[in-house]
Amino acid sequence: MKVTVSRKAHFNAAHRLFNPAWSADKNEEVFGKCNNPEFHGHNYELIVSVKGEIDSRTGYVMDMKVLKDLIKDTIEDRFDHKNLNTQTEEFKSLNPTAENIAVVIFDLLRPHLNETLDLKITLYETPRNYVEYEG
Amino acid sequence: MKVTVSRKAHFNAAHRLFNPAWSADKNEEVFGKCNNPEFHGHNYELIVSVKGEIDSRTGYVMDMKVLKDLIKDTIEDRFDHKNLNTQTEEFKSLNPTAENIAVVIFDLLRPHLNETLDLKITLYETPRNYVEYEG
Amino acid sequence: MKVTVSRKAHFNAAHRLFNPAWSADKNEEVFGKCNNPEFHGHNYELIVSVKGEIDSRTGYVMDMKVLKDLIKDTIEDRFDHKNLNTQTEEFKSLNPTAENIAVVIFDLLRPHLNETLDLKITLYETPRNYVEYEG
Amino acid sequence: MKVTVSRKAHFNAAHRLFNPAWSADKNEEVFGKCNNPEFHGHNYELIVSVKGEIDSRTGYVMDMKVLKDLIKDTIEDRFDHKNLNTQTEEFKSLNPTAENIAVVIFDLLRPHLNETLDLKITLYETPRNYVEYEG
Amino acid sequence: MKVTVSRKAHFNAAHRLFNPAWSADKNEEVFGKCNNPEFHGHNYELIVSVKGEIDSRTGYVMDMKVLKDLIKDTIEDRFDHKNLNTQTEEFKSLNPTAENIAVVIFDLLRPHLNETLDLKITLYETPRNYVEYEG
Amino acid sequence: MKVTVSRKAHFNAAHRLFNPAWSADKNEEVFGKCNNPEFHGHNYELIVSVKGEIDSRTGYVMDMKVLKDLIKDTIEDRFDHKNLNTQTEEFKSLNPTAENIAVVIFDLLRPHLNETLDLKITLYETPRNYVEYEG
Repeated sequence: MKVTVSRKAHFNAAHRLFNPAWSADKNEEVFGKCNNPEFHGHNYELIVSVKGEIDSRTGYVMDMKVLKDLIKDTIEDRFDHKNLNTQTEEFKSLNPTAENIAVVIFDLLRPHLNETLDLKITLYETPRNYVEYEG
Repeated sequence: MKVTVSRKAHFNAAHRLFNPAWSADKNEEVFGKCNNPEFHGHNYELIVSVKGEIDSRTGYVMDMKVLKDLIKDTIEDRFDHKNLNTQTEEFKSLNPTAENIAVVIFDLLRPHLNETLDLKITLYETPRNYVEYEG
Repeated sequence: MKVTVSRKAHFNAAHRLFNPAWSADKNEEVFGKCNNPEFHGHNYELIVSVKGEIDSRTGYVMDMKVLKDLIKDTIEDRFDHKNLNTQTEEFKSLNPTAENIAVVIFDLLRPHLNETLDLKITLYETPRNYVEYEG
Repeated sequence: MKVTVSRKAHFNAAHRLFNPAWSADKNEEVFGKCNNPEFHGHNYELIVSVKGEIDSRTGYVMDMKVLKDLIKDTIEDRFDHKNLNTQTEEFKSLNPTAENIAVVIFDLLRPHLNETLDLKITLYETPRNYVEYEG
Repeated sequence: MKVTVSRKAHFNAAHRLFNPAWSADKNEEVFGKCNNPEFHGHNYELIVSVKGEIDSRTGYVMDMKVLKDLIKDTIEDRFDHKNLNTQTEEFKSLNPTAENIAVVIFDLLRPHLNETLDLKITLYETPRNYVEYEG
Repeated sequence: MKVTVSRKAHFNAAHRLFNPAWSADKNEEVFGKCNNPEFHGHNYELIVSVKGEIDSRTGYVMDMKVLKDLIKDTIEDRFDHKNLNTQTEEFKSLNPTAENIAVVIFDLLRPHLNETLDLKITLYETPRNYVEYEG
């Protein structure tokens, strides 16, 4: 009897998209205005979903307060009000597209969760664009 | 050619979280302010999703008016403006966590739907916390 | 050059509507299922709006972090996960309708704000019902 | 390492639901006010989701600008501000239920996407009714 | 001590914009695709706001159930699933722009409300376009 | 018979808050993490509201397509995917707080609108923080 529990969080960050192996022209061609060397930014809306059995003693799959605190300590404190390209280890050499950010968030959270639990990340870059990753 | 159709509904209810097998201290430790013996409450937003083949005569998987009425008769009339702990049979001895409420709603709706249809319940306890259950 | 700045917050609470000067029948007639003596509850979404001149040194009408903390200390800590009727001083003898809750929140916040600032409270009782109060 | 990327779009259209093989009475009985011969309409909110591997050079599963333009050229320009029953080839002889519209949108977009990509359509007919189709 | 109470409602309708005093070309020039003679449609989201004194016996400015029923009887039953141009008296000779629909709704509701109450109409034609009218 | 028409738009930008007349410590004390010298960013949601008489020939206060294009040409093209501090004339020496951005947008749009029309700017910096300015 597996149930999925989800918690919404958010962080604001600056980023630019580019591939250091490419010329400026090629970057401009591929990434357009997202390649602005002076950066732009987003309000990232994050949904962390955890699937597992209900614990019959608590009625919880996982305590949402624990999940909320885990997201704050592991993700929000790391990325909120940061420049992803210049101020985070994770994107020093990885292009901070929504896809890559979702994978990084998954990899950061996965070790903190019991192995019996499934994890899924949903990340809104804008209200009209979002990505999902399940490992 | 299976399609999933979903209908949103809602109900407002009071509840508290606790485990009668535990001491007051243990309940306080595990459930925190959700354990308030005088209750608190939520606007529960419910999404009922039904997956099945499109009927070629109607173009429907299921008539949404029928689904809307089924949700009203089976779920809203039972739980809306109620105290889940003291005024419902379902949670007399079951902790009314979002997880358990979703399972109860699934079990209440399942017998009313054709066996060829799949059912999924999504329940928002708050705009930032929600659960999903597919049986 | 006055600008209005607004901050959203929320709290979950239980309540019932009734008038102790009336009979049970009269209360039932007027308040219907909102009169349930076992309580029901809501996710209250609160918007606090403050209007004033922009401070040319900060570019702020008011620091949103200060406003956020003020709402938490003055309103959320007082009402979140509480039974408004039985566990708050404010509604011991005042019917906790959305209208009255908005006025109470206004009166609680007003003394903490500079006299040159205008205050407005918007309170969503459900996603479809809300009230506004400007003093 | 597959990720799903989603893009929201919308279009406004008029339609009516009916089955030409049925009598007017039968259509009225089955489709109710959705059978109004003078039409009614909706703001259709469309989410197009594409699942695939991240391209390590771009960090993209698919360029969202390309997806946005594809939706505009293939779906919005075809259906926006149209009468689905009388002004589109697709629904000349197919009942424009949300289910059938989702399948038609899937079939229109599928040939434009690389075979290695999975496609999913989510279509909101109203804020409370929506359908999903994955082929 | 005046408070504003608001109730959200919605209806789906077809319409077209045109001025019968103008040529087809002039209508096409001014109204563009909104002039489509085969109609298009919208999910209209309606907010009805009523401002007045709190009744100290009830704690209400106005009973929201009464307001909800008034909107249903006076507005939803009249316009929902209708073709505004061909099936309503109000828009037989009045262009059904969002502006005009808001004024018509105001004029339909005004006589049903106590003179001491202020009325305001907010009407969303799409999630990105809306109008407000206060008489 | 004045009606207010509103149009939503959005742009993504990077910014930092600081006062060049202050020391780094003072800036850190006042603006906290918003003072990050490497910038952070937001999805700014913008609502432009215009109030005026309905033109009886069109049923419009103002053509929403004209307003949409005006916002795109005057605001979105100027600020979207830009670093407000380093890449815009307007914020070279003005702190890009939400308050100041709203005033700048007002001042940029005001000359393009007929004098008989009132203008109001609403700007969401995050889903929980927003400002309003009416001149």
